Amino acid sequence: MEKNTICAISTPAGQGGIAVIRVSGEEALTICDKIFVPSKKDKKLSDQQPYTVCFGRIYKKDEVLDEVLVSVFHNPHSFTGEDTVEITCHGSLYIQQEILKLLLENGCHLALPGEFTQRAFLNGKMDLSQAEAVADLITSSSAASHKLAMSQMRGGFSKELQQLRSQLLDFVSLIELELDFGEEDVEFADRTQLLELSENIRIVIERLVKSFGLGNVIKNGIPVAIVGETNAGKSTLLNHLLNEEKAIVSEIHGTTRDAIEDIVNINGISFRFIDTAGIRETGDIIETMGIERTFQKIEQASIVIWMVDVTQFSEKIEELADKIISRTENKQLIIVFNKIDKISSEEQTVLEEEFLPHIPAKRIYLSAKYRKNTDTLEQVLLEAANLPDFGENDVIITNMRHYEALSKALDAIERVDKGLREGISGDFISQDIRECMHYLGEITGDISTDEVLGNIFGKFCVGK
Amino acid sequence: MEKNTICAISTPAGQGGIAVIRVSGEEALTICDKIFVPSKKDKKLSDQQPYTVCFGRIYKKDEVLDEVLVSVFHNPHSFTGEDTVEITCHGSLYIQQEILKLLLENGCHLALPGEFTQRAFLNGKMDLSQAEAVADLITSSSAASHKLAMSQMRGGFSKELQQLRSQLLDFVSLIELELDFGEEDVEFADRTQLLELSENIRIVIERLVKSFGLGNVIKNGIPVAIVGETNAGKSTLLNHLLNEEKAIVSEIHGTTRDAIEDIVNINGISFRFIDTAGIRETGDIIETMGIERTFQKIEQASIVIWMVDVTQFSEKIEELADKIISRTENKQLIIVFNKIDKISSEEQTVLEEEFLPHIPAKRIYLSAKYRKNTDTLEQVLLEAANLPDFGENDVIITNMRHYEALSKALDAIERVDKGLREGISGDFISQDIRECMHYLGEITGDISTDEVLGNIFGKFCVGK
Repeated sequence: MEKNTICAISTPAGQGGIAVIRVSGEEALTICDKIFVPSKKDKKLSDQQPYTVCFGRIYKKDEVLDEVLVSVFHNPHSFTGEDTVEITCHGSLYIQQEILKLLLENGCHLALPGEFTQRAFLNGKMDLSQAEAVADLITSSSAASHKLAMSQMRGGFSKELQQLRSQLLDFVSLIELELDFGEEDVEFADRTQLLELSENIRIVIERLVKSFGLGNVIKNGIPVAIVGETNAGKSTLLNHLLNEEKAIVSEIHGTTRDAIEDIVNINGISFRFIDTAGIRETGDIIETMGIERTFQKIEQASIVIWMVDVTQFSEKIEELADKIISRTENKQLIIVFNKIDKISSEEQTVLEEEFLPHIPAKRIYLSAKYRKNTDTLEQVLLEAANLPDFGENDVIITNMRHYEALSKALDAIERVDKGLREGISGDFISQDIRECMHYLGEITGDISTDEVLGNIFGKFCVGK
Repeated sequence: MEKNTICAISTPAGQGGIAVIRVSGEEALTICDKIFVPSKKDKKLSDQQPYTVCFGRIYKKDEVLDEVLVSVFHNPHSFTGEDTVEITCHGSLYIQQEILKLLLENGCHLALPGEFTQRAFLNGKMDLSQAEAVADLITSSSAASHKLAMSQMRGGFSKELQQLRSQLLDFVSLIELELDFGEEDVEFADRTQLLELSENIRIVIERLVKSFGLGNVIKNGIPVAIVGETNAGKSTLLNHLLNEEKAIVSEIHGTTRDAIEDIVNINGISFRFIDTAGIRETGDIIETMGIERTFQKIEQASIVIWMVDVTQFSEKIEELADKIISRTENKQLIIVFNKIDKISSEEQTVLEEEFLPHIPAKRIYLSAKYRKNTDTLEQVLLEAANLPDFGENDVIITNMRHYEALSKALDAIERVDKGLREGISGDFISQDIRECMHYLGEITGDISTDEVLGNIFGKFCVGK
């Protein structure tokens, strides 16, 4: 590993009250001392106590560039495990850029995406799954996904993997001890006991593999498709759901809706609304190609909302209904009758009794525009999501890489199980156990390649 | 002033590696102690030394919300002059929002825009013109505007005003002493000396008033209008200028171009390109209403670039030329002949000799697309801007409010001058001097109303 000193802006991109520039590496203190003059002139940063903050000025030649606060951390008691300086400056783009330039001119390198966290990993401050959780933590936008990422970052998953690996190590030791005495044809280990051990390990890995289904929807949101004709009121409904839940974020941040536009948080659960623009833009959905594209989108959803404008029924509604039913067999279907403010209660009663009664779906009668009954929809969505409750200590896999490694580990342990039952040679069993350990090691980073690390940290933002 | 404790996210809006939440007020430490558990369990924030950083966890009920660094500052040694806590958390929107919620639940109030800086002003940490410079510093996007804001924030302007006020105080004391002995008809002060004093003060105020012209273009950019027909290559040229100068910002920040799209920085000077969309969207500019709208835009510019596509001359080019000349009499006109890569050098020579030779304008022959000669344009723009050099200690007014107050102060001191020459009563002269002092006091905030403060700080971002 190169031991150069790196720097980056760690706060969100853009202009703000303040911004933080982070510097990490052996030269962090000496480089910063070249551009920073503390207001108490006798004390350089290199002489400051760790975990202290120092007020002073950043100079660009003879000119004061900014008045800043500088925090000092010493190896190994920092996030990266290296000497680290955090410069809190005024949040103008110009100042952020100029300070970064000064640091580069004085010997820093611009940090790669995720390089601070990568160094934390390489310096043994956290294992690989914990490092990955840092990125998940930053992007998590719901209470549930945040909880999973936090638990993983704090080592919940690592602890589980450690236990598995230590069990596997015991297991393989027993087998390999037998192999050493192979010619004497001894069996140190009771086969029943070994089977029990492999069975226990298999159960734990299987549970982790299975948890990925849940982890994935928690992390990325439960996929929901809304289908319906152009004027059915999809946008109004979506905006309403978004506004209700995002109000606090919006107040604080101006607008962040662009990035998370179609994720709606309801009681801490994320619902990811799949764009079915194909259907929206065609007048008569049944006769166009658009419907096929929409139905492809439905494939990705686990909940489908069919929005019906009660003031305007398509002539081919039965045909549409058939198509929807045939595509939502293993999904939760919710029929939303919109614009009920425009019909009488008698008309609604007729609808309730006569609208395609054979369709197995939840039905909701609401007015998206006047926000009548929309809270019922939220309730129904939560029921349809049907997520099991989980505690802080439950380990749930959210990461595709972990899922793949665990799946391979499961294959291996299943071969061990089979081998034990069929009484095949300890050589092969030992090999399979070691393969299982290898894949678990990939998750924690005990076994890793530059390519794997590059893939993982390349997806981080710069500055973390 | 209400002495409640306020909090806000102080880093730029959005998701990033880390974010900083600032808490200020009497209860800052005790409120933060309710949600923060330091990793060294025996030391609460209220017991921490000032200017230290503490690692620990923020709890939401029993759940760990985040692992954070917390910096502690004690009244009066903080930006606001109050007890202050800065929480550096992971930069997910969810975490930022939840920590803010926790602080609010535990007794904090959400800070109003600029409220931290307003408190710094009210607590005597800076005067009003310095507080205003904080906002200018954050929005400054060029070396020149940054330098002005920094000098003002560090009190350069305040010092100048202080000197003026102390001179005025001496002045008014002399006059008013005379008034006390009015019946005895004495003249303590030599009239010639008084005239000299008022003249000196007038000169300084006048210089400050006049500097606003320069300060304004430095702060907001030198206004440049590009006129020309749709395909002349305006966008290509502008993109080229933007890309060259914004490269570093873009690399770091992804894209910040939306907000600053039409400001181009050349050698630390901002040029503000005025959108002349009116002319762009009409085919034959001379015969449409569009040209009138464009010429209105030209009014705002001090530099006008007329872009000519050398492969396609309009039939009515002479007519257009006349209109442009008549509207750019007191402006710098630059004719940019674009797409010269498409003509021969003979054709270019003809152009140089024969194209409307009577027009008094700089002429540049370039290819925006192939970036040929565009650096010459930058050079010519810098010459046309013709900004005087100024040093770090030169006080230059950039703020409209200061300009207005200084203009009124100038009126008053001119009346003093006139009164002295005409030998009018000391009563009136004293009143005019006091008026002059009043207006200078408005700038520093020695004299201020809630309305004025509301106007000033309302324009700040939240968190500063």
